[in-house]
Amino acid sequence: MLTFSTITDLAQLPLFDRYVDLIQISERNMQNYALLKELAKLDKPLVLRRGTSSTIEDTLLSADYLMRCGNQQIIICERGIKTFETYTRHTLDISAIPLIKKLSHLPVIVDPSRATGRRDKVPPMARAAVAAGADGLLIEVHHDPDHALCDGAQSLGLDQFNKLTGQMRVIASAVERQF
Amino acid sequence: MLTFSTITDLAQLPLFDRYVDLIQISERNMQNYALLKELAKLDKPLVLRRGTSSTIEDTLLSADYLMRCGNQQIIICERGIKTFETYTRHTLDISAIPLIKKLSHLPVIVDPSRATGRRDKVPPMARAAVAAGADGLLIEVHHDPDHALCDGAQSLGLDQFNKLTGQMRVIASAVERQF
Amino acid sequence: MLTFSTITDLAQLPLFDRYVDLIQISERNMQNYALLKELAKLDKPLVLRRGTSSTIEDTLLSADYLMRCGNQQIIICERGIKTFETYTRHTLDISAIPLIKKLSHLPVIVDPSRATGRRDKVPPMARAAVAAGADGLLIEVHHDPDHALCDGAQSLGLDQFNKLTGQMRVIASAVERQF
Amino acid sequence: MLTFSTITDLAQLPLFDRYVDLIQISERNMQNYALLKELAKLDKPLVLRRGTSSTIEDTLLSADYLMRCGNQQIIICERGIKTFETYTRHTLDISAIPLIKKLSHLPVIVDPSRATGRRDKVPPMARAAVAAGADGLLIEVHHDPDHALCDGAQSLGLDQFNKLTGQMRVIASAVERQF
Repeated sequence: MLTFSTITDLAQLPLFDRYVDLIQISERNMQNYALLKELAKLDKPLVLRRGTSSTIEDTLLSADYLMRCGNQQIIICERGIKTFETYTRHTLDISAIPLIKKLSHLPVIVDPSRATGRRDKVPPMARAAVAAGADGLLIEVHHDPDHALCDGAQSLGLDQFNKLTGQMRVIASAVERQF
Repeated sequence: MLTFSTITDLAQLPLFDRYVDLIQISERNMQNYALLKELAKLDKPLVLRRGTSSTIEDTLLSADYLMRCGNQQIIICERGIKTFETYTRHTLDISAIPLIKKLSHLPVIVDPSRATGRRDKVPPMARAAVAAGADGLLIEVHHDPDHALCDGAQSLGLDQFNKLTGQMRVIASAVERQF
Repeated sequence: MLTFSTITDLAQLPLFDRYVDLIQISERNMQNYALLKELAKLDKPLVLRRGTSSTIEDTLLSADYLMRCGNQQIIICERGIKTFETYTRHTLDISAIPLIKKLSHLPVIVDPSRATGRRDKVPPMARAAVAAGADGLLIEVHHDPDHALCDGAQSLGLDQFNKLTGQMRVIASAVERQF
Repeated sequence: MLTFSTITDLAQLPLFDRYVDLIQISERNMQNYALLKELAKLDKPLVLRRGTSSTIEDTLLSADYLMRCGNQQIIICERGIKTFETYTRHTLDISAIPLIKKLSHLPVIVDPSRATGRRDKVPPMARAAVAAGADGLLIEVHHDPDHALCDGAQSLGLDQFNKLTGQMRVIASAVERQF
């Protein structure tokens, strides 16, 4: 089993170094260079979340900073950008997937749960991400989402998740990927 | 064969009434109520393009105006919204597809050529649109796009288009649609 | 007395030509070239309102279109742009005043009533506009704004207006303007 | 003489506590709660800069966090927000001044140098800020701005600054303030 968690402050670094296999850098810290510099010294994969007001170029410059500081195991996470649309929490920028993959060699994962904030929008956006070439997904799942202590509104139930994985497998095959 | 063209001014109406089967309303005219009122009197399907600064609610209110004025054959076209991202011409809002389909009974089509403005981004965005439940696509194709008189940079060649339709057929099957 | 009114459709042109001294072009028509072309043929001053999603460059290009079509009496009106701020209706872009005046020879007026939508914000924004070099203001005034049939929430009472004009006179003197 | 400097990282806190009289919190740290919590323990005035993608409400919530953590000496600094306008670095939101002053009891200062990034735009925006009720200004001045090591393009020369202070004194009197 892999442990995966989001670091939000430099003071958490020793704990993360000891216990977390895959460290996620939150949107707000995408340009916290003091934190990036220390994280880059660890021999662990880092998930860099694109800030909601950041361009693709901003995001790649932060990834570049991490790489120049010594860590080459960078994964970019697209999780939605700020727009004038109000029905969704943020607007998931699906076009960022092929763009980042063309502009860099970095893998791109997508977080449709956090981006949309709404359970029924997670499956279509997860399928769209796979169809556009995403290398991975962060999907929140719960055995009883309506009674989850936190983030239930954006979590899938097990049946929904099973149906979705079946669909994603078919879509992945259409773009010559395995899932 | 169907004729399809975009109306930009009220003075063009008699000509469009005579020769065009499927009339598209440009983004700039989405809230041109004088034009909408006259178009709604025609017994023809209308494609309403979402403005690049319009929310989904704005778009549905314009569709509602057309329907209250008497035309029920409305198709919504998502073609990208204005964001701070600069690598693409506009940001195609894939999440608008499931949202509009839930909030209304209207079919939703997507224009990845115009939204991205870049040929190599058309296939991933077209696939993403199908995966998210789009009812149709507007894709620009040219037998020799590098020498097209206009919009060549966003047009697919025939081989690319053939490959894409094959992929879309597989993706459509995953979401229980035919293509 | 001068008559001043906003044209919203080409069909209104004969009426406006006959009765209106100063014709205002609404934000939505800033890029309605069919309308601009006809308006440019009139020998009347035109107030071009900057669209809420338009850049200064967009606005100057529309002004340029009017001038190339034959009308040199163009006045630009800044009336607020779309931003993520929600307390005000739009964000009045005060910096557009010195910018447009540097980039062109055109007079710039400001509409703080429409931009803010709130009576108590009209005086500070009107004063700021004068301080930044505006050539004029559109301010809605009503003898009993709380009972106005329309736009009362953004209209000043007569006492407020008198106080404001006194303040603006002092500010105008500081920037070597008369008021 | 007062020392004034911007803190960007928690590790700088002991040094700032010792040597800085007035501590500025940079835009990127407006929601860095770990840093805010520690800063709030100091018995020093804090200048909270509004983030370029933050609403007025976001900014007041950060100010509220500082106050609930024990520091009541909070000054808000408006320094421009992200918009689609490209002629200026950011769009200085002059309407934020009367809004923040109405929604809270906090003093508001304005940074026209950083917001516009252009020397010739600093005087009109500084005058507008005073006319709208600002309590203070941050203006970069240099005896020889064209040869400044840093930020010369947005710095005023001494003559420009003298002329500006004269103008601001007149404007301040119009709004019953002293300067």
